[in-house]
Amino acid sequence: MSYQALDEQTLVEYIRRTPESAKWFPSEQSLETSDLADGNMNLVFRVRAVAAPDGPSVIVKQALPYARSVGESFGVPLDRIRIEAGALQIEATYCPDWVPKIYLYDPDMHALVMEDLHQHLVMRRGMMKQIKYPHCATHLGTFLARSLFYTSDLYLSSETKKKMACEFANPALCKVTEDLVFTHPFMQHPENRYSRSLEAYVLEFQADEELLAGVLQLREKFMSQSQALIHGDLHTGSIMVNQAETKVIDPEFACYGPMGFDIGSLAGNFALSYISQAYHASSQASCHAYQAWIVSTLQQIWEVFEQTFCSLWDEEAVLWKNDTYKKAYVVSLLQDTAGFAGVEMIRRVLGLAHVADLDSIADEQVRAPLERAALTVAARLIRTRRKLQTPEDVIGCMFD
Amino acid sequence: MSYQALDEQTLVEYIRRTPESAKWFPSEQSLETSDLADGNMNLVFRVRAVAAPDGPSVIVKQALPYARSVGESFGVPLDRIRIEAGALQIEATYCPDWVPKIYLYDPDMHALVMEDLHQHLVMRRGMMKQIKYPHCATHLGTFLARSLFYTSDLYLSSETKKKMACEFANPALCKVTEDLVFTHPFMQHPENRYSRSLEAYVLEFQADEELLAGVLQLREKFMSQSQALIHGDLHTGSIMVNQAETKVIDPEFACYGPMGFDIGSLAGNFALSYISQAYHASSQASCHAYQAWIVSTLQQIWEVFEQTFCSLWDEEAVLWKNDTYKKAYVVSLLQDTAGFAGVEMIRRVLGLAHVADLDSIADEQVRAPLERAALTVAARLIRTRRKLQTPEDVIGCMFD
Repeated sequence: MSYQALDEQTLVEYIRRTPESAKWFPSEQSLETSDLADGNMNLVFRVRAVAAPDGPSVIVKQALPYARSVGESFGVPLDRIRIEAGALQIEATYCPDWVPKIYLYDPDMHALVMEDLHQHLVMRRGMMKQIKYPHCATHLGTFLARSLFYTSDLYLSSETKKKMACEFANPALCKVTEDLVFTHPFMQHPENRYSRSLEAYVLEFQADEELLAGVLQLREKFMSQSQALIHGDLHTGSIMVNQAETKVIDPEFACYGPMGFDIGSLAGNFALSYISQAYHASSQASCHAYQAWIVSTLQQIWEVFEQTFCSLWDEEAVLWKNDTYKKAYVVSLLQDTAGFAGVEMIRRVLGLAHVADLDSIADEQVRAPLERAALTVAARLIRTRRKLQTPEDVIGCMFD
Repeated sequence: MSYQALDEQTLVEYIRRTPESAKWFPSEQSLETSDLADGNMNLVFRVRAVAAPDGPSVIVKQALPYARSVGESFGVPLDRIRIEAGALQIEATYCPDWVPKIYLYDPDMHALVMEDLHQHLVMRRGMMKQIKYPHCATHLGTFLARSLFYTSDLYLSSETKKKMACEFANPALCKVTEDLVFTHPFMQHPENRYSRSLEAYVLEFQADEELLAGVLQLREKFMSQSQALIHGDLHTGSIMVNQAETKVIDPEFACYGPMGFDIGSLAGNFALSYISQAYHASSQASCHAYQAWIVSTLQQIWEVFEQTFCSLWDEEAVLWKNDTYKKAYVVSLLQDTAGFAGVEMIRRVLGLAHVADLDSIADEQVRAPLERAALTVAARLIRTRRKLQTPEDVIGCMFD
């Protein structure tokens, strides 16, 4: 079938034509679809049997030749769904418990048919409601350790790693990150948007040569360090959770890059959630309690990450057995994590793509001071990252 | 023509069949060939007219499916000649004065027909004879600055850089470097060879966890930092010189890697030449005079490199204007240079591929102390590299 954007009508026809459809829905069932796309890059639909609303369902995700949330002016290649399918396949090998199951990848239609995570909630939304997830730290720490270790030079043969780095070169989406995360927020750019009352502070921020030098170093690292296959967009909106399970979704930005970029994006979004709790929590007590949960969860993510990563290293790294090197490697990841967390926080306040944690606060009088606090923490993370030696140092810098 | 290894007989036939041959040799001329291969990876021949031994000549270089100097057991893909042709083409764009002219690249025969540099001498040989080259520092510093700057993210679009990094992925030859430069010399390996009297010192060396951690960090950098298109094997045997000209040859190891790898390989070979002058120079006075020339030439190479690189940055780098960042970038290149110089020196003493500077000293009583001195300097460079801030710091560490 030649590529065309699906809609709720053509989708049923499409699903019925796929040879696998009988596996999901017996042929006598009539199907219904619903549009789930929610400000994302792609079309997303749920398909289920009309007669069995609680029965099996699937998600169909299809790339458009542009970013859905911005519009046709923001062209992004359809190839991103190949990247997503490839990354999900690799993650399924090493982290099967923490990614959605893929039922079908259709390269002609640039579409994926995948597990419906209707029993999960987007983690960002859960955190805005002060929901605690008792297992997510273990799940996320393990996901990070395994997905990064097994795709790095620590485990793969040099030839395989080089081949994978080219398969996942992902130039168009890396360029989006280079621009929207590392460049535009640090200059006057028409796509930026921020609370008007921050203007004077932002101008000062964008004129700080030393801070910008740190951002340029992190940008360079993102652009030229092919350390592991990173998710590339690991914020709390790319995680689906419930009390039992954690699923990392949407790796369409996957590429070979620095490991700290993934851990740092996640940490930066945790910090933004922490800061915005002052607004979202129903009382000061519940605010403090949830902030304490955020801090201990982030600390635990790092601990699980470090422990799992180092165990894999001890058991499976062939040529790299050297404790001094391993320790320095982990400290370097921690410093990268702090730096990338800072950049993520800044771009979410000043750049094109904001986060609901802060943007849902309609009153600028309330929102702007929180945004300013986020910028201050972020700048400190970037400036002092190379002095940080322990997870406690990072926590201290992030949640003062 | 399907691939077959050329010899002096089939070569004349081959040259006559290439459509370009009339440009080099009128059809009435009968041609003679000579085998120039000298312990290298490839077949290398000179072709000229019998009746005009001083007339025009060309060099034909052809890849074999193995490394000529080691034998058929050491398989290396024929694809390396595509890499060499591609790198020479890019260098010819930005550094036309310092590379040989390519007349023909024949992908079927995995062969290059190129300028004959018969008026030049291999720089290593010249340095073993204490020949001073008044222009080589300017030429090499400029070559390094231009070839590295113009192929980096500082100049290229992100998309073009990523495409080039994949074209030059060069997995087989990178693996040779990873093994022979960064791995085997630092362990007991059957391909290593070194003076017997160094045995105890070498065992101590190979057990030094902190030194090895530094080597692993440099190895990681070589394997995962795609900073610029590097030559990949820039020792003094890859440079042809005379009093007027300098030509960088043999970029078959070219790949995207850290800029400091090229500058460091060159610096490490300068240091080995410096150390071996104690044997090669005819008197103590001539030894000291030539050692002083080596030191000042290396310092000048760095100065020309830094000045040219920073001018290109100021004039042509689009997004990276930030003096703090630029200064830190250059210091980081200097530190990488010191580290890679150290690794190059060690592998030339302990690994498979030695240098004539030291290996031509037949008497082990004379040679071993010089080799040991080289190892001591190299270890100091690797250990202290991150404290070095100026070219004088590196010079002080290298030539104490």
